[in-house]
Amino acid sequence: MAVESAVEFAAGNGERFVEELTALLRIPSVSTDPERVGDVRKAAQFVADELARIGMENVHLIETTTPTHNGHPLVYADWLHVPGKPTVLCYGHYDVQPAEPLELWKSPAFEPEIRDGNIYARGAVDDKGQMWMHVKALESLMTAHGGKLPVNVRVIVEGEEEVGGEGIAAFVREHGDQLKADVALVSDTEMFAPELPTLCVGLRGMIYTEIEVNSARGDLHSGIFGGAAPNSFIGLAQIIAKLKDENGRILLPHVYDKVQQPTEAELEAWKKLPFDEEEYREKEVGTSALTGEPGYGVLHRLWARPTLEVHGMPGGFIGAGAKTVIPAKAVAKVSMRLVPDMTPAETFALLRDYVATIVPKGCTVEVRMIHSGDPIVISTDNHFVTAATEAMKTVFGKDTVFVRGGGSIPIVGDFVRELGIPTVLMGFGLPDDNLHAPNEKFNLSNFHRGIESIVRWLELVGA
Amino acid sequence: MAVESAVEFAAGNGERFVEELTALLRIPSVSTDPERVGDVRKAAQFVADELARIGMENVHLIETTTPTHNGHPLVYADWLHVPGKPTVLCYGHYDVQPAEPLELWKSPAFEPEIRDGNIYARGAVDDKGQMWMHVKALESLMTAHGGKLPVNVRVIVEGEEEVGGEGIAAFVREHGDQLKADVALVSDTEMFAPELPTLCVGLRGMIYTEIEVNSARGDLHSGIFGGAAPNSFIGLAQIIAKLKDENGRILLPHVYDKVQQPTEAELEAWKKLPFDEEEYREKEVGTSALTGEPGYGVLHRLWARPTLEVHGMPGGFIGAGAKTVIPAKAVAKVSMRLVPDMTPAETFALLRDYVATIVPKGCTVEVRMIHSGDPIVISTDNHFVTAATEAMKTVFGKDTVFVRGGGSIPIVGDFVRELGIPTVLMGFGLPDDNLHAPNEKFNLSNFHRGIESIVRWLELVGA
Repeated sequence: MAVESAVEFAAGNGERFVEELTALLRIPSVSTDPERVGDVRKAAQFVADELARIGMENVHLIETTTPTHNGHPLVYADWLHVPGKPTVLCYGHYDVQPAEPLELWKSPAFEPEIRDGNIYARGAVDDKGQMWMHVKALESLMTAHGGKLPVNVRVIVEGEEEVGGEGIAAFVREHGDQLKADVALVSDTEMFAPELPTLCVGLRGMIYTEIEVNSARGDLHSGIFGGAAPNSFIGLAQIIAKLKDENGRILLPHVYDKVQQPTEAELEAWKKLPFDEEEYREKEVGTSALTGEPGYGVLHRLWARPTLEVHGMPGGFIGAGAKTVIPAKAVAKVSMRLVPDMTPAETFALLRDYVATIVPKGCTVEVRMIHSGDPIVISTDNHFVTAATEAMKTVFGKDTVFVRGGGSIPIVGDFVRELGIPTVLMGFGLPDDNLHAPNEKFNLSNFHRGIESIVRWLELVGA
Repeated sequence: MAVESAVEFAAGNGERFVEELTALLRIPSVSTDPERVGDVRKAAQFVADELARIGMENVHLIETTTPTHNGHPLVYADWLHVPGKPTVLCYGHYDVQPAEPLELWKSPAFEPEIRDGNIYARGAVDDKGQMWMHVKALESLMTAHGGKLPVNVRVIVEGEEEVGGEGIAAFVREHGDQLKADVALVSDTEMFAPELPTLCVGLRGMIYTEIEVNSARGDLHSGIFGGAAPNSFIGLAQIIAKLKDENGRILLPHVYDKVQQPTEAELEAWKKLPFDEEEYREKEVGTSALTGEPGYGVLHRLWARPTLEVHGMPGGFIGAGAKTVIPAKAVAKVSMRLVPDMTPAETFALLRDYVATIVPKGCTVEVRMIHSGDPIVISTDNHFVTAATEAMKTVFGKDTVFVRGGGSIPIVGDFVRELGIPTVLMGFGLPDDNLHAPNEKFNLSNFHRGIESIVRWLELVGA
């Protein structure tokens, strides 16, 4: 059978696949860094070249720069020669988060190193490693089928996922016809636990904002003005302290009004997942106490309740030593995670309007939206999901668990809204992979099993 | 009389004095800039050469570099030939702040320009111009007295005032015997208003600290962990919001216990000073509302009440755009200004102990002292102060006002503690001289009247 021959090909070429991934991980395609524009494009070209080499067609970069957006290119490819069979849209991203703080990496972020069966590098699992599984599954099938595929396939790989994905969102909105498909495959999530095949069926949305406080005409000397002039950082701290209570409940009026309660069946299933709160607190978070909304379990809070976080507070004096300035301007990067049926626009308005009621004396405050994404929930009763559980049962020997993700993958909402197609979120990361943090890794066994799972899934979708 | 002849000499040579100051101001002796080390030394040598030329003795540079400190030299000189008369220690500094932002200067920072009776340049008033008044007063007296002075004089001029003054502090501590004197003269302050002779008789002290919050083993993805993991920045904001109330009253228990109430006479005198709170709010601070402890006037808050400020909050993500990280570590640079009889050690303990009682859930907190300085109040009932008011009355035709400063001049505390001598803070700057800012200036009429005031004061001290 062709599928077994594809699986065999993948197994026999696994070492080469890792070497190729290593080369891709060496490219510091940090999409948020203006100095890395060239590296980001280099990563795009790397992916495009490989798609062309394995036999995909119409391979090209799609520019996303517009008069108002300095974009990174999309990589597109397709192979559409089995009429009557479904079309699968494989999505991934080749851009990565910044690697800072560099000093906390055991091996340099862009010099991949294999230790204990894991490959360590920025982007290892998010998402270069997982996107590469798609490419290698396609290569394996293409070889086993003598230059053909069992289904129609389109590939779209973006370079702005870590900076909001504006370019692909515009492309999906304006050129949806060029991405016509029956289902999307996204591998940018994780397994609930090692050895436990997992499908993600819900994702939180988000709004990412900046709250800026201004308190004076300019920076002032704290000796000369301290005691009379307002301080933008103290004002901002007072605002932040009023956004959440000390347990973690969000204090914006009406913020919980639209929150959908998960079904009883879903809540029951979550209770059966292998989850030890004490171990999670100590090992995964590494804190003396978890926080969060009282009255809800950890998984419920992470997957089906909104949250609000502060990511950093630019402005003022942050160098070594002492500078006695009263900063005139302070900014907080504040995001909120949303769940169905919250919407970004409504939630941003709640935040902005509430902040306007708690402006500290002597300060002016502006709340800006940086980007946003819708929350989604995916139904589990369709052929594509069934095929995924079947494929992973063969590879892992276990039934798939359905979980939600606390994070956001805005493109999944775009696929639903603009293309009208469901997404299968089949991811092979692990909870301790250090996404967006130092020492990001990807388990190589999961890389190989991921390729096999995708090979088998594509074959079943085309059966 | 010799004093009138000295005043006449100063008047007749005023133009030359300004030309010499101009040459000194051309030397960009920015002490914080490693590339200006040569210029800083050039300025030291310029001062030393002039002290030697006018007849001061033992003129030499004192190196301050140690294995742990990359220092700029002190300039020393003395003339000690009137036994039985007091010894005056003249202090000043020849280093300056950086000139950035350069584009905001109307004429270049190191190309002095005279406009509207002011000399514009970095260091014009802080402190080259004011230090030069000392040198020129000594020259005038030396000439009038036929190569002698009416009192014993030591001169010490430092080159690290703008970077913490570590070198002179160590010298005063370790070689105080070489600076033996009865009183110090410092001209590094300002007049309360034009035409208003002013003595500064109090300075606030300070503690400069860092408050560090840690909340997790490392940075975490806000999608995956948001809702369960504590957030170091939110925890730190909650702490800061509890340090001061919304009016600006400091919430540390017992922080006001040791605060000395100014005398009724001092409070009365402050009320008579020409101060328009509304103009101060709008022009000097540039804010919609002043803040501060209820129940105290602005000058009282600035001069005789402690304050607490946040200067910046390093850590987390502060780049452009969006990064969805829950930062594991957040730091706030927090300083407090102290007034008599507060001490840095006691105040730091109050801060540290109070913060320990408000540690947010899931966080650990450390409070570190970076540096500190004692607050001081100078008594006004001594011969040196009386001589100063008398001298300035002759020059300005007005009674001196006694004010305090909200900032710190740590060397004044060192003179009290290490040398056991009072300081006369006779300064001739103006409130709009733009210290540490673009377009720094010094009023030339104040330069000349300052020289005359110092000539008359030295004569009276020796009378």
